[in-house]
Amino acid sequence: MQELRKRKQTIVFSEPPSILSFASVVGKMEACGPLSGSFDLSARDGHFGQISWEKAETHMQRTALQLALQKAALEEKDLDAVFLGDLLNQCIGSSFSMRGKNIPTLGLYGACSTMAEGMLLAGMSVAGGFCNRVSALSSSHFASSERQYRFPLGYGGQRPPTAQWTVTGCGAVIIGKSGNGPYLRSATIGCVTDAGVTDGNNMGAAMAPAAFQTILAHFRDTGTGPKDYDLIVTGDLGKLGSQALRQLFEKEGIDFGPHYEDCGVLIFDLEKQDVHCGGSGCGCSAAVLCGYLLGQMQRRKINRMLFCGTGALLSPVSIQQGESIPSICHAVELHTERS
Amino acid sequence: MQELRKRKQTIVFSEPPSILSFASVVGKMEACGPLSGSFDLSARDGHFGQISWEKAETHMQRTALQLALQKAALEEKDLDAVFLGDLLNQCIGSSFSMRGKNIPTLGLYGACSTMAEGMLLAGMSVAGGFCNRVSALSSSHFASSERQYRFPLGYGGQRPPTAQWTVTGCGAVIIGKSGNGPYLRSATIGCVTDAGVTDGNNMGAAMAPAAFQTILAHFRDTGTGPKDYDLIVTGDLGKLGSQALRQLFEKEGIDFGPHYEDCGVLIFDLEKQDVHCGGSGCGCSAAVLCGYLLGQMQRRKINRMLFCGTGALLSPVSIQQGESIPSICHAVELHTERS
Repeated sequence: MQELRKRKQTIVFSEPPSILSFASVVGKMEACGPLSGSFDLSARDGHFGQISWEKAETHMQRTALQLALQKAALEEKDLDAVFLGDLLNQCIGSSFSMRGKNIPTLGLYGACSTMAEGMLLAGMSVAGGFCNRVSALSSSHFASSERQYRFPLGYGGQRPPTAQWTVTGCGAVIIGKSGNGPYLRSATIGCVTDAGVTDGNNMGAAMAPAAFQTILAHFRDTGTGPKDYDLIVTGDLGKLGSQALRQLFEKEGIDFGPHYEDCGVLIFDLEKQDVHCGGSGCGCSAAVLCGYLLGQMQRRKINRMLFCGTGALLSPVSIQQGESIPSICHAVELHTERS
Repeated sequence: MQELRKRKQTIVFSEPPSILSFASVVGKMEACGPLSGSFDLSARDGHFGQISWEKAETHMQRTALQLALQKAALEEKDLDAVFLGDLLNQCIGSSFSMRGKNIPTLGLYGACSTMAEGMLLAGMSVAGGFCNRVSALSSSHFASSERQYRFPLGYGGQRPPTAQWTVTGCGAVIIGKSGNGPYLRSATIGCVTDAGVTDGNNMGAAMAPAAFQTILAHFRDTGTGPKDYDLIVTGDLGKLGSQALRQLFEKEGIDFGPHYEDCGVLIFDLEKQDVHCGGSGCGCSAAVLCGYLLGQMQRRKINRMLFCGTGALLSPVSIQQGESIPSICHAVELHTERS
């Protein structure tokens, strides 16, 4: 940990950009979970009226962006850039959703950390004076992910208890120079961390050390601790990964206390919904952020939040080649007050 | 074209960041091509001493970054961020090359436009005052790409005349606040364009309209034209795509004249090297930029260049589903003079 402590990973926005609006779209199962009332839209089934799951994912992205724009009384032409990505090979969910839209597009790959990465870069583009209004968005789809990362759904493979359930969902935020908040105060860029986990069905364990390093770097760079936040929330560590993260901090003598949650644990009822360790996927943190979390901030139930997107940077090829799973975590500090 | 003309897609850097150093690593075939002398390092075979092509790609990235750092007398710890990506599923070339390096990492997916996208974002991060020194890098590998996008190499599939040859190569630049140039003067963010091409073996035709739109937007936003540049260079349109781009501009009444080249045409001897339409892949524009092109700028043979990364945003799944190929082009304006 010695070298980590020397490096500054955090960008502080001296003129904090504001979130102008946000929207979320989810699948049926997510709409049956504990956060049900917080999403803007849910589908009756995973197809969203489309002929393929990939097209369904693209449809979610387009819908979420449209809803977010509507809420801010903006149109597509008002956006100077969109920062987006997904889990599909070559990120086709995102490329196809931006097709023919005539919006300057910057594609990202941060696995399930993409929403946080997008907000970090979107914030930079606005705070740096390069863009006026931008969007960050990200999605995942249970069925398109399963067949790509693991087995075809028809195969009916058994899921081990450590497995998580890829969320069918999408979240989009619009970020601008001036607005009523919440505001992006700072962002911490993560480093690729690898704890040597080789089990693609235990991604929480693989990602917890990345979350630990980034949050610790954030605390160090900003001189804060868990008590300075109403909520520190990780993207999709799930039940086991969240426990592992708490333990890593305990070893450092830092108690997270009641200030810590995980989007993958929040989005499903882990007892009743048969999702084992909880939700995962780019859409997990994106939909929970753009539904429940920013909703709570709007109502001033949460005033200061550290949103930590967590990504497992594996591919089926890397797993088949016996590689361990590199992970990353990017953190964005959101505050209801501008300064 | 009407709507396009209304939108500003170009970021002008009022304090242009400088390229501090650059380096390129290529495979054997690239080292036998016309740009042979311009690369820093080439391998005897496609394995680069590694046990898989994926590991070979990671090795190229690590080597190119190391060389670029050495040339600038910097170390990894001096980097505030790396912006990088590749073509592999879930961008594993990049994730694995940054593993354990303790460098803040921002993963990108822009297909073969990634080098330009990385430079654009790297420039933004420095010009905005968020980072002091950053790197942008990108790679591709013929063998890892072929088996992923098309057929296993052992199958010996015939390549149609419109096909291009994925470059085995990597380029890395280090960008900083102050230096001796070349300088990043401006950058134009591309929109996702789709001309309806469905043939995955004719990517030049698919990408030419994206290059056309971005370059036209750049001309419009900056009030420039082909004569203002010593060189306008696209990433990997290849022979046919380059011709298509010239024709699109001719229709607009704009003659590119002798000011236009394509990295995919430059890197191979199209007559002798049996690469059909030329090179392609993220590594094509990255290695040509970080070898020949920036070399020419250093020697003041080229003083003002528009570097246009071109990406075909397809996946094998999207092609199998009968989808056309969305494309994107990001452009970066480089100048030997700061202002």
